[in-house]
Amino acid sequence: MFEVAELGHALSKKEYKLRVPELRTELLTIQEQLKQADFPVLVLISGVDGAGKGETVNLLNEWLDPRYVRTHAFGPMSDEERERPHYWRFWRALPPHGRIGLYVGSWYSQPVAERVAGTLNEAELDASLLRIKTFEKELVDDGALVIKIWLHLSRAAQAARLKKLESNPATAWRVTKQDKKHLKHYNQFRSIAERTLRETSTGEAPWIIVEGTDPGYRGLTVGQHILERIRLRLQQREQQRVSLPPSSSEALPVLTRPLTLLSHLDMNKRLGKKAYQEQLEKLQGRLHLLARAAHERKISSVIVLEGWDAGGKGGLIRRIIPALDARHYQIIPIAAPTDEERAHHYLWRFWRHIPRGGQITIYDRSWYGRVLVERVEGYARPEEWMRAYAEINDFEEQLSDHGTVVLKFWLHIDKDEQMVRFKAREKISYKQYKITEEDYRNREHWDEYEHAVNDMVERTSTEYAPWVLIEGNDKRFARIKALQEYCDRLEAALAAPPAH
Amino acid sequence: MFEVAELGHALSKKEYKLRVPELRTELLTIQEQLKQADFPVLVLISGVDGAGKGETVNLLNEWLDPRYVRTHAFGPMSDEERERPHYWRFWRALPPHGRIGLYVGSWYSQPVAERVAGTLNEAELDASLLRIKTFEKELVDDGALVIKIWLHLSRAAQAARLKKLESNPATAWRVTKQDKKHLKHYNQFRSIAERTLRETSTGEAPWIIVEGTDPGYRGLTVGQHILERIRLRLQQREQQRVSLPPSSSEALPVLTRPLTLLSHLDMNKRLGKKAYQEQLEKLQGRLHLLARAAHERKISSVIVLEGWDAGGKGGLIRRIIPALDARHYQIIPIAAPTDEERAHHYLWRFWRHIPRGGQITIYDRSWYGRVLVERVEGYARPEEWMRAYAEINDFEEQLSDHGTVVLKFWLHIDKDEQMVRFKAREKISYKQYKITEEDYRNREHWDEYEHAVNDMVERTSTEYAPWVLIEGNDKRFARIKALQEYCDRLEAALAAPPAH
Repeated sequence: MFEVAELGHALSKKEYKLRVPELRTELLTIQEQLKQADFPVLVLISGVDGAGKGETVNLLNEWLDPRYVRTHAFGPMSDEERERPHYWRFWRALPPHGRIGLYVGSWYSQPVAERVAGTLNEAELDASLLRIKTFEKELVDDGALVIKIWLHLSRAAQAARLKKLESNPATAWRVTKQDKKHLKHYNQFRSIAERTLRETSTGEAPWIIVEGTDPGYRGLTVGQHILERIRLRLQQREQQRVSLPPSSSEALPVLTRPLTLLSHLDMNKRLGKKAYQEQLEKLQGRLHLLARAAHERKISSVIVLEGWDAGGKGGLIRRIIPALDARHYQIIPIAAPTDEERAHHYLWRFWRHIPRGGQITIYDRSWYGRVLVERVEGYARPEEWMRAYAEINDFEEQLSDHGTVVLKFWLHIDKDEQMVRFKAREKISYKQYKITEEDYRNREHWDEYEHAVNDMVERTSTEYAPWVLIEGNDKRFARIKALQEYCDRLEAALAAPPAH
Repeated sequence: MFEVAELGHALSKKEYKLRVPELRTELLTIQEQLKQADFPVLVLISGVDGAGKGETVNLLNEWLDPRYVRTHAFGPMSDEERERPHYWRFWRALPPHGRIGLYVGSWYSQPVAERVAGTLNEAELDASLLRIKTFEKELVDDGALVIKIWLHLSRAAQAARLKKLESNPATAWRVTKQDKKHLKHYNQFRSIAERTLRETSTGEAPWIIVEGTDPGYRGLTVGQHILERIRLRLQQREQQRVSLPPSSSEALPVLTRPLTLLSHLDMNKRLGKKAYQEQLEKLQGRLHLLARAAHERKISSVIVLEGWDAGGKGGLIRRIIPALDARHYQIIPIAAPTDEERAHHYLWRFWRHIPRGGQITIYDRSWYGRVLVERVEGYARPEEWMRAYAEINDFEEQLSDHGTVVLKFWLHIDKDEQMVRFKAREKISYKQYKITEEDYRNREHWDEYEHAVNDMVERTSTEYAPWVLIEGNDKRFARIKALQEYCDRLEAALAAPPAH
C-alpha cells in the first residue's frame, strides 16, 4: 500500500517556485466559490511522524484565505470533553457549509497511537475504525466533502531525517526520545496504519497517500489535490442544480504521481538460459512437494495473473502447472462475462470458482479488471470502481482469513518490449490468433493504465495479499521470480499453525 | 422495537379471502415486469420460532410464479462449503437480475443462534453483523433490492401457541424440546434480535417487523409489502431511464399497519386531583434527591419530549424543574434551525447541547423532527429520513455508552382532546400566542403523523433508550407517569456500577 510513496518523489526549487503562485491563485478562487456552496470541506492531514504534517498545515493556512479555514488539533481531552461522549469534540469542530476544516491529528490519531502502544487490542482497534466509518458516512451522506491525506515516509527516510537533525547542533534538540522510540516501532506502526487506511478508505472518502520526504513535492501535491477535489465537487453540485442527466456522479480524482511504481522497476533484469533451466527444474521440484503438502493440509491457493498484453501470463502458467497434480488446479481465463455472469454482482463470477480445500485456482485476469480495463475504458462509473478497492480488499481478506494463499502477480513489460512481442506473434502461425487490432489500440491508453495500476497497488496491496510486481522484459527472469514467490508463500503457509 | 408487533393484528377469514385474489394477480403482474429488470430481489424471512417463517415462504411460493423464484434455506454446512470462506454459500445463492431469491434462514440465522447459545460473545456478534452489513451494502450498491422481514411473536403468543399445539393430541408431536428451550430463552433471544435488527437496519435495506400471530394478516402483509417494494423500485428505474430530475430517489414504503401503538393506548386513564397532589409532591421530593445524587456521581440526563401539539410538554417541564437545581439543567426548545445550524449536519445542533457530567438537558422537541415533521411535510427526502433512524440510534448509543440516562417521552392525546385544548387556549389571553393557523392545519396530517410515530418507535425504541408512550388526555396522569419514569431510570442508573 505504501510502496507508491517510497519512490523518491521530489521537486526542484525552481519548479516549486514556478508552480506555487498559480496554485495559490487557484486555491483562493475556488475558496471564493466554495463560500456559496451548500457543503463543508474537511481536510485531514495524517501520517508518519516527521513526514511533515505540521508544515503542510502551516503551508495550507498560508495559501488559503485563513478567514474561512479553521485548523483543529486534538490534544489530550479537556474536562469539558471527558464529561461527554468521545465524539462530542469532533462534532464541535465540524466546519459549516462553505468553509474548510483542517485537521492535524483527528479521530484517527488516538486509535492508531493506542494500538501501537498496545493499550488497544486488535478487536478494539476494529471497533474504533467502525466508529470512524459510521461518523464519516454520516458526514458524507449529508454532503460533506472529506479529503483524507496520509503523509508517508519510508523507514530509511525517517532514519535519515533524524540523523540529519542530530548532526546539526542547531537542530539536534528537535530529536526527542519519542522520535527514536517511534523509529524503533516503525514496522509495527506501518502495519497498523495499513490496516487503518484499508478499513477506512471508502469510495466516498478515500485515503490519498503522499510521499512526505520532499517538502516542495509534498506541499504542492497536497494543495493540488485539495483544489481538484473541491473543483470537482462544485462542478457536480452545479450539474445537479441544473439537473443534468444522472451521469453527474462525482469523478474522484486519484493522485496522478509523476513517478509510478512501474516506472521504478529495473527492466534490465535478465537471466541466462543455463541458469534459468537449472533454477526452473529446481523450483518446479520444490513447488511439486509444497503443493502436495498444501493439498494434504487442505491449504488452497488463489493465484491472480494480471499484466500488459503479451506480458507473459500464458508462458508463466505453462511453467507452473507441470509441477501440479492436474486434479488439483483449475485455470479460469477471464474474458467478457457471460449473460449469466452479467446478471450478477461483478464479484459473483469470481466467487464461483473459489477453490475447495487444498485446491488451486489460477485466474488469468481477474476481479482487478474492475479497476483496470473497466476504469480506463469507462465501462464502470467512477463511484463503481472507487468502491471496488474496498470490496476487493474485503473479498481477499475473507479468502485469507479462511487460510487460502492469495498471490497476485503483475507481469510488467515496457512499451517497446510489447511491440517486439506483438510483431513476433504475428509471425508465428499458432500465435497469430492472439493478436488483434484491439491490442494495438490499447497501447494508446498506456499511461492511463499505468496510473490505474499504480492506484491499484496503492489501494489493494495488503499484508495478507500483497502485489508482486514482476520485471518481465526477460521471460526467464519473470518466470523464476514468480515461481520462487509462490514457493515461498506456500512454505510460509505450511509453516504456520493450521487456521482451522 | 417489537412493541409495534404485539398489538394483536389479525384479519378475518372473510377479509383474507376477499383480498388474496387481487394480491396474487398483482404479484404475478409485477413479477412479469421484474423479469426484464436489471436488478435482483432478495427477500429474507426471519424471526421468532413459531411466528410462521416456513408457512410464509410456502405461501409466497404458491402466490408467485415459482419458475422465477428460488428458495434457499441454509442448514449445516456441507463439505463443499466448509472448505471455502463462510460467505461462499451465500454468494452461490444470489439470484440473477429479474429473479427473486427467497431466504428462510439466511446470513442472520447462525450469528443470532450462536449468540443465544453463548458460543459467540458480544464482540463476535458485532463482527458478524459488520460482515453482514458489508455484504448487504455490496449487493445494494450493485442495485439489488433487499427486503428483510422479521416475523415477531410476543412471549405470551409463543407460549399460547405451544400450549395449543400440546393440548391437541394430533399436533402435540410438533412441540419439541427445542421449542420449550427457546421459550425459556425468549427474553434473551428478543434482546439479541433487537441488537441485530438495530445494527443492520440501514436506510437502503431496512428491517420490516410483522406480527406473526395471525396467519392471514401475516401472509397478506408480507405479500403486500414485497409487491410495493418491487413496484416502487421498478418505477424508480423507469424514471432514471427516461432521466427525470434527481427527485427520483426511491421512496421506501414503510409498513402501514392497521393497528398503531398509539391507537392501543388506554386513553381513559385518569388521576384524581387529590391523589395527583400527593403523588406529585412525593415524586418531586424523590426526584430532587435522585438528581442531586446523580449530579454528584456525574451521571447526566438527556430528556426528549415529543408529542402532539398541546400534548402537555410545557406543563410537564414545569413539573420537573422545581425538583432540580437551576444550575444543573438547561431546556432547549427546538424550533426552526438557525442559519448556523442549517449550515451543519442536522444532528450538530443537538450535539451542541449535550450536557456535561451530572447535568441535565431537556429537549422540547428534538432530533426526532427528522422522522416526524420533516418526513410528513416532505422537508427531508425519503433516503434522508430512512437513514436517520440508524443515525439516531447510533447517536443515542454513544450517549448511553457514556453513562448518560436517555429518556424519551411521547405525550399522546387524541384528536378530540387536542381540539378541546386548542379552543381553551384561544380563550386564555396568555396562552393565545401558543395557537396558530398552522396548528389547525397540522391536524389534517394526523394519520400520517400517527404512522410516522409508529415507525419511529419501531425503529428507535431500544434497550438503552426506550420510548415511553404517555397516555396524556388527563394531564395529571401524564405528569405523574413521566415523573415516575424519570425517577425509576435515575435510580437504576445510580444502582449500576460507575461507567467510568
